[in-house]
Amino acid sequence: MNNFTFHVPTDIRFGKGQVECLPAELSKYGKKILLVYGGGSIKRTGLYDTLVSLLKDFEIFELAGIEPNPKITSVRKGVEICKAEKIDVILAVGGGSCIDASKNIACGAFYDGDPWDLVLDKTKVTKALPIAVVLTICATGSEMNSGAVISNEETNEKRELASDLLYPALSVCDPTYLYTLPEKQTAAGSADILSHVLEQYFQPNDEAFITDKLSEGVMQTVIKYCPIALKEPENYEARSNLMWASTVGLNHLLTVGKGGAWSCHPMEHELSAYYDITHGVGLAIVTPAWMRYILCDKTVDRFVKYAENVWDIKEEDPYKAANLAIEKTAEFFKACGLPSTLKEVGIGSEKFEEMAKEAVRVSGISNRSFFHLQSGDIVKIFESCEN
Amino acid sequence: MNNFTFHVPTDIRFGKGQVECLPAELSKYGKKILLVYGGGSIKRTGLYDTLVSLLKDFEIFELAGIEPNPKITSVRKGVEICKAEKIDVILAVGGGSCIDASKNIACGAFYDGDPWDLVLDKTKVTKALPIAVVLTICATGSEMNSGAVISNEETNEKRELASDLLYPALSVCDPTYLYTLPEKQTAAGSADILSHVLEQYFQPNDEAFITDKLSEGVMQTVIKYCPIALKEPENYEARSNLMWASTVGLNHLLTVGKGGAWSCHPMEHELSAYYDITHGVGLAIVTPAWMRYILCDKTVDRFVKYAENVWDIKEEDPYKAANLAIEKTAEFFKACGLPSTLKEVGIGSEKFEEMAKEAVRVSGISNRSFFHLQSGDIVKIFESCEN
Repeated sequence: MNNFTFHVPTDIRFGKGQVECLPAELSKYGKKILLVYGGGSIKRTGLYDTLVSLLKDFEIFELAGIEPNPKITSVRKGVEICKAEKIDVILAVGGGSCIDASKNIACGAFYDGDPWDLVLDKTKVTKALPIAVVLTICATGSEMNSGAVISNEETNEKRELASDLLYPALSVCDPTYLYTLPEKQTAAGSADILSHVLEQYFQPNDEAFITDKLSEGVMQTVIKYCPIALKEPENYEARSNLMWASTVGLNHLLTVGKGGAWSCHPMEHELSAYYDITHGVGLAIVTPAWMRYILCDKTVDRFVKYAENVWDIKEEDPYKAANLAIEKTAEFFKACGLPSTLKEVGIGSEKFEEMAKEAVRVSGISNRSFFHLQSGDIVKIFESCEN
Repeated sequence: MNNFTFHVPTDIRFGKGQVECLPAELSKYGKKILLVYGGGSIKRTGLYDTLVSLLKDFEIFELAGIEPNPKITSVRKGVEICKAEKIDVILAVGGGSCIDASKNIACGAFYDGDPWDLVLDKTKVTKALPIAVVLTICATGSEMNSGAVISNEETNEKRELASDLLYPALSVCDPTYLYTLPEKQTAAGSADILSHVLEQYFQPNDEAFITDKLSEGVMQTVIKYCPIALKEPENYEARSNLMWASTVGLNHLLTVGKGGAWSCHPMEHELSAYYDITHGVGLAIVTPAWMRYILCDKTVDRFVKYAENVWDIKEEDPYKAANLAIEKTAEFFKACGLPSTLKEVGIGSEKFEEMAKEAVRVSGISNRSFFHLQSGDIVKIFESCEN
């Protein structure tokens, strides 16, 4: 196992009715709240009214309209409010987009320049407002990690911000908030969770057995419960297992002792940066194609582990086992109603080379990932999922 | 899944050489350290000298001789030093005993009465000194949880102290420190880890699928690596997987969504309170006996899960599967060189009734455990492992 640090201070309040803790918890930080949310869904479901009524003794400022791939322009607006109103705490209500935007706002509030600088250079993050979360989409794990992905629409860049100062102080995870999620978001969120675990699992370090075992358990959870949640949106067992899987899937636990750079996320980030598609949808398209492309003598053993321990495939021939597992993965995404080709989401080949070069430029995919990929490889992977 | 809170703020530094972080980390708290350790092993291995040299700019006070089942008399001595010398931070170097004693000392330092009061009434814990840990035995998970078990030799009581104020601030977990552990401690520590996971796994809530999957992964880790560590004490892969298994095994992760009271620990705590045997040894004796006693139609399904997912037993008849898993568990302890009868550790039947009554009095074994046991049941379980 590689050396590691594990220090995840977020206070998770998981389950029905946990939102009630907010007044007492938020009052630890002060009276002025910046409420960050997305479209109107929290108004339709009544969560907005619940929050306003619970927090009647606070002064609430609002930043609504955070985009599915949160944009630096929204972050800038949030930072302005924090500075002008001397906000004490940010309350992100939504999924990864709202939380990620809030993280950039939280550190932007203490930075004199443009908050995009902080995305480009993490060493400039020196202080941040406390962040509380009410999670309404389970996917990114942002509710219990220190990362954020922000898009710059002017430059087509989608980049990661990360700092130990950006762990949410508190995250309320109530699975009943997932009952009203559109099917597509349940499916795309589950694809995102599964992809997070796969990115951490497909790494060269076999010595971190315990971490692999935990990863296999989280993958089995997603595979079991996503179809149930799609069929029965108000199945609490399914929603609660998926919700906790999203948190555990990317709160650092599944990477300890392993490390290494990711593969599918850098490729997908280019797709959603250039075409603004849903992140989980892009991952569902790219992941099986990536698996097919990298399967070889150097990687087959890990695929066999994945086949046996996640998909319960008993097959003596390692390549047969590996290919079966890859097809099971592709079938899982399809059965969840997710697209499997770029054509289905309106992406043509015109920017493949540009996106591939950018993926190599901004990530460790070419030199620190499980199977190093150069831009030529990435173009081939994009081509293989064109139609 | 049951509602839960997950908030574990301990900063884990895992791997070779992590002890180097101590000067910078401890200086956050002040200059006066109370160094708490057990017998002379840290002097024999050179760890003591390493620490003294690393911490040459600090003022170190020492509390040596912490017992394997840490006693309130040692805690009292530690509290006295903390009060007299105005200690800033406690550095526990050892396994669960040193850490547990340090937890009681940490809160005792801010309490006017006898520190045993804090064990009997957790609401009296209102403040605690920060605790740092250098782990040299992996077993109890105390390095990343808020609990401590303290013995009162005057009253034969072994009781649990727990408070959110008692999470270690920092734990250095270097698997190479386990290289010199006596075989018996490697085995007893592994039995303790396995028992922690079993206590959390054998609970009635089947809905927490993800938690069960994570538990199965940790159990498989212990079962795989304990025999390797016994054969090859300097096998880093084995030591590191066991060390992290001990931490993850009892840092709250494997109980979320489940809950319920424990069974084997309350029974064993009486054995070690009355006879001062090694905790992990007592667990190895009691656990298979408990399993055999509670196997019935009400419990068999969980045993089948345990058989299939931990021991890879494929057996259609549920009772056959369950019994095979129980025997595998007993064989595992035996193969690690652990005793399987009370006779082997010099315990006769004379106090069975007294211990059984005490177990019921101080724990939830009779009304909140997986299979409720009254004192008559506990006597029968003790009797079944007499010879």
